[in-house]
Amino acid sequence: MINEQYKKMLEGKSVIRQLSEFATARGKEIGYENVFDYSLGNPSVPVPEEFTEGMIRLLKSKSSLELHGYSPSLGIASVKDAIAESLNKRFGMSYSGNHIFPTTGAAGAVAHAVRCVTSPGDEVLTFAPYFPEYGPYINMSGAILKVVPADTESFQINFEKLEEMINNKTAALLINTPNNPSGAVYSRETLKKLSELLERKQKEFGHDIFMISDEPYREIVFDGIEAPYVSKFYDNTLSCYSYSKSLSLPGERMGYVAANPRCRDGELISAICGQISRGIGHNCPPSIIQLGVAQVLDLTADMSVYERNMNILYKELTDLGFSCVKPGGTFYIFPKALEEDATAFCKKALSYDLVLVPSDSFGVPGYFRMAYCIDTEKVERSLEALRRFVKENY
Amino acid sequence: MINEQYKKMLEGKSVIRQLSEFATARGKEIGYENVFDYSLGNPSVPVPEEFTEGMIRLLKSKSSLELHGYSPSLGIASVKDAIAESLNKRFGMSYSGNHIFPTTGAAGAVAHAVRCVTSPGDEVLTFAPYFPEYGPYINMSGAILKVVPADTESFQINFEKLEEMINNKTAALLINTPNNPSGAVYSRETLKKLSELLERKQKEFGHDIFMISDEPYREIVFDGIEAPYVSKFYDNTLSCYSYSKSLSLPGERMGYVAANPRCRDGELISAICGQISRGIGHNCPPSIIQLGVAQVLDLTADMSVYERNMNILYKELTDLGFSCVKPGGTFYIFPKALEEDATAFCKKALSYDLVLVPSDSFGVPGYFRMAYCIDTEKVERSLEALRRFVKENY
Repeated sequence: MINEQYKKMLEGKSVIRQLSEFATARGKEIGYENVFDYSLGNPSVPVPEEFTEGMIRLLKSKSSLELHGYSPSLGIASVKDAIAESLNKRFGMSYSGNHIFPTTGAAGAVAHAVRCVTSPGDEVLTFAPYFPEYGPYINMSGAILKVVPADTESFQINFEKLEEMINNKTAALLINTPNNPSGAVYSRETLKKLSELLERKQKEFGHDIFMISDEPYREIVFDGIEAPYVSKFYDNTLSCYSYSKSLSLPGERMGYVAANPRCRDGELISAICGQISRGIGHNCPPSIIQLGVAQVLDLTADMSVYERNMNILYKELTDLGFSCVKPGGTFYIFPKALEEDATAFCKKALSYDLVLVPSDSFGVPGYFRMAYCIDTEKVERSLEALRRFVKENY
Repeated sequence: MINEQYKKMLEGKSVIRQLSEFATARGKEIGYENVFDYSLGNPSVPVPEEFTEGMIRLLKSKSSLELHGYSPSLGIASVKDAIAESLNKRFGMSYSGNHIFPTTGAAGAVAHAVRCVTSPGDEVLTFAPYFPEYGPYINMSGAILKVVPADTESFQINFEKLEEMINNKTAALLINTPNNPSGAVYSRETLKKLSELLERKQKEFGHDIFMISDEPYREIVFDGIEAPYVSKFYDNTLSCYSYSKSLSLPGERMGYVAANPRCRDGELISAICGQISRGIGHNCPPSIIQLGVAQVLDLTADMSVYERNMNILYKELTDLGFSCVKPGGTFYIFPKALEEDATAFCKKALSYDLVLVPSDSFGVPGYFRMAYCIDTEKVERSLEALRRFVKENY
């Protein structure tokens, strides 16, 4: 008896996936270099050479039984210790390896963190615009996703709406800074105000409210600033990270949950995550991936291309009359569409071989997302198409 | 609000894990080579060199963006095609790549298969003795594990008890051949009889009953025989495989679900598995692991040591008066303990630095498991301890 709930999920096809398939098909007709594909957040710069060299060294020097043996179910101790140490050094935290649980990217980290701190029926708040996969991570755990409307002025937090929506059933807030899709980086002021509100609400409701901080873009920030480390502001924080973007390793699925040492049951979070994994038969990222990434924890790929692309696009878009919050990080920009119906807008853009993603699935109508993790040369070539598209339609 | 259900799970510690920890601690006192550790099913022979060479070749020759890019959410097409072709060639099946869903080992495969073909409240039958992790895979999905008592004569199937227990709520049977912990390989007769019974019950109840076949030990069989391929006997079969044992890669977490092309919704099973993964934020095994394993699909590590060890142990155990079904495969043997309480029996064995696993957690009282995936030289050295243990206590 095939499970009908999962079967039904097959009907709803991801818009981003459909657009990306269009881009691939169109690429076969006119050459992919002529399709201005801004649909997918797939890093466009190579992994640091040290990663490749380190992997080859592991394969050549370690005994195969040691290298490919079972990882302990909570992760390889030396890897967890190295991650803790790296975070402590960079952000002045006091993690031990026991606070770290290795996961399959930030996706796995967020899904585990949600299950850790909610029970079925609990509410998890997130802020529009938000990454659409938060829906399955939360709703398939039995908790309920509630979306706080966007602050479209700055894509910081709409505190008025948040105050209205937070209630006794709120078990967690899920935030994402630097943000996909807006590119906004939450300021120190935003994070301070948010943590004060949460502290107050914890007292009012008499229970913990966790902050689940999804931060795969933590290292992609512009103008030389650093994104404030969320866990510094609020004790009950679970930081969810991925090396997909910073090391350009999206396919290798390596990330972690880091439980603030001062959060409730801080030392147990990792063990609870282990139990969650157990039910789905998933025991940690592969040993060689854990060991390979641990060798290059403090490196990043050369991500300067993303800032260069952002500046080119931001200038062109504002010159063309788009209303647009300047991204502080990530490789996304989120301008307002030139008509109310973002899907219609993006459909028209396809005739110019511009693949843009309408904002509806991000929880905000009337905007579109461009993922500019592509070559700068292609960004530059796309400007002419963008100009024609706007001129001929609006 | 930390999830109490998961937190509670932390209290029940795995017996196998506790024994393995004892062995490690004792090893620090007297040297691990002097601890006869038969607790863990961790392969003891190296991976084929072709795997290591192939991984290095991938790292050296592929562009990093191509090698480390996102895997499609249902797995890399070329990898799925290669797995299908290999199965078709070996077992005369007609899989296409669309019938294959890559998973994190057989554990991930079984957990996905269970969710695919059950809804909460449905019953899944398995046969004692069984791998204890079936409990979490099934119960944490919302379905209910029911254990059919063992046929202790041969560790084939107790059909009388099965007939009594199968009912309208039965959504699936979970079988494991070659079997952990008994080492039994289901015969053609057993599989034929089982499939006839299931066909009959499907008609009687008017709904599908799936066979979930957990077969990570498929390649570890003795006396030159081949384990019958379960899916050949019954259309509604989902085969769950892992390369952990056959390639000695347990830490790299690579396996698959293969849906019989003639099973209900055969082409959809893989897509449904993708939706199940989505909820837990897990998108396929890492790209490099999928590609690395795909290069050596038809190889195995040199597993002759397991048969050698089995023969030594079987002879010694029967000489010492143990009642024992001769294993047809795996690297386990499952003799009857010399007293009713298997835990007391195994506790006494610890004084002789013999680490044996009592059978209670496998669903059969009064037996013990030895995992003989260790060096033959150590097996031979352990015989003296085994003799002393039996002589001085029974």
